[in-house]
Amino acid sequence: MKKTSEKKKRRIFLRVAYDGTRYAGFQVQNNGIGIQNVIDDALSDWLKEKIHTAAASRTDAGVHAFGNVLVFDTFSQIPGEKYAFGLNTGLPDDIKVQESFEVPADFHPRFTSTVKTYEYKILNRTFPDPLRRVDSFFYHGHLDADSMNIAANMLVGEHDFASFCSTGNSHKTTVRTIYSAYVEQEDDMIWFDITGDGFLYNMVRIIAGTLIEIGKGAMTPRSMERILASRDRSFAGPTAPACGLTLVNIEYPEWGF
Amino acid sequence: MKKTSEKKKRRIFLRVAYDGTRYAGFQVQNNGIGIQNVIDDALSDWLKEKIHTAAASRTDAGVHAFGNVLVFDTFSQIPGEKYAFGLNTGLPDDIKVQESFEVPADFHPRFTSTVKTYEYKILNRTFPDPLRRVDSFFYHGHLDADSMNIAANMLVGEHDFASFCSTGNSHKTTVRTIYSAYVEQEDDMIWFDITGDGFLYNMVRIIAGTLIEIGKGAMTPRSMERILASRDRSFAGPTAPACGLTLVNIEYPEWGF
Repeated sequence: MKKTSEKKKRRIFLRVAYDGTRYAGFQVQNNGIGIQNVIDDALSDWLKEKIHTAAASRTDAGVHAFGNVLVFDTFSQIPGEKYAFGLNTGLPDDIKVQESFEVPADFHPRFTSTVKTYEYKILNRTFPDPLRRVDSFFYHGHLDADSMNIAANMLVGEHDFASFCSTGNSHKTTVRTIYSAYVEQEDDMIWFDITGDGFLYNMVRIIAGTLIEIGKGAMTPRSMERILASRDRSFAGPTAPACGLTLVNIEYPEWGF
Repeated sequence: MKKTSEKKKRRIFLRVAYDGTRYAGFQVQNNGIGIQNVIDDALSDWLKEKIHTAAASRTDAGVHAFGNVLVFDTFSQIPGEKYAFGLNTGLPDDIKVQESFEVPADFHPRFTSTVKTYEYKILNRTFPDPLRRVDSFFYHGHLDADSMNIAANMLVGEHDFASFCSTGNSHKTTVRTIYSAYVEQEDDMIWFDITGDGFLYNMVRIIAGTLIEIGKGAMTPRSMERILASRDRSFAGPTAPACGLTLVNIEYPEWGF
């Protein structure tokens, strides 16, 4: 009988922040490096055990996170809160764990009801700013943040978001509940923050692209209602660039974390 | 008689922002790429004329700028304010011009009295944040921003800053006038902003390193006065890392820009 089979595996929860700029996406890809790839390798090297993480959200190429959630199972007996410190020493500067703790073995980060928050940042000024280029989309034309906020507010509630979903979406239903959605401006930075029980493929980026059209004056704030009602992707604006999007946080209300 | 010798050269002023992370410094270096190098090449390529810029400040490797000042002379007849737009198309994402205009031929960005503002940012939290790593120094231990602010305020006025100057300094005098110096905190970010008529070699980074010692509690706020009076580098704190420093702005009061 092998010794490892006697030991019990524990499940560890990680909140992970990353700058997605130089990655081909979250998941391991044939072309380019995936963020999950880097984390799995760092964990395996450190714990001397083959580790496969499971993630709450497989963010697209170029998308950032402040709080994506990953779990992994390990034979290691390190206290749960210590994984963040230990793993960070083996991770590059653009991926850093923010929190770690042990969770029950039946917790899964994806097949569990969640409250997710995304943020889309638009740097709205005449010239690009190299020091704020990483996590914002630069747009030099005039944007009316008040109109964008009025339109964003119309998304709150339970709606069919089929108009804000890229083709190739594999979700069973396109109905989602948005708890809050608003646009704020401070000087030359415009933030769009949206919190809901889930998001369809490219949903936040298509909403952001639509809000930019509204901010430009190419669509009225009221168009948001008509676009929602149409359930037709062609009515919405273009998909905004990945660089402006950050997965800010994921909460698991039923689990209390 | 050559045609170019008949044309009159004009002097163009540039305010330039850059992320210094991947550069070996501002000035052309034997090892690595200099920021000025990239700008000179982009200007020369665009204007089909050999361009040599002169800069207000030759920032060190890894130091950033929001408003370093460069001038260059050109035969080109493009209106002064258009150089920012044209040059930006030939510059990488980490170097972008913020403003351009024509100045008198006798204006020199370095041999002219200036008001310079620097900012040193400290990200003070348990774990590094990949999305705010570019222009801040990460420090995880406790820092008391109020103590740091009291000490920073003591720098205001005309003082001999010999204690805050790296050996190898070639300045004729170590006396400088500081117009304002303060420390502010918002959540997990601490800012040190300092404005003066000039700064010695490494002066802002040595002051920042001293303020960090004071924030830790390793020195009292009142030590700042004793360090100033000593005129001895060994009394001050260590030189803080380059990544936290940004040259925010340079003004030329006598010229009105």
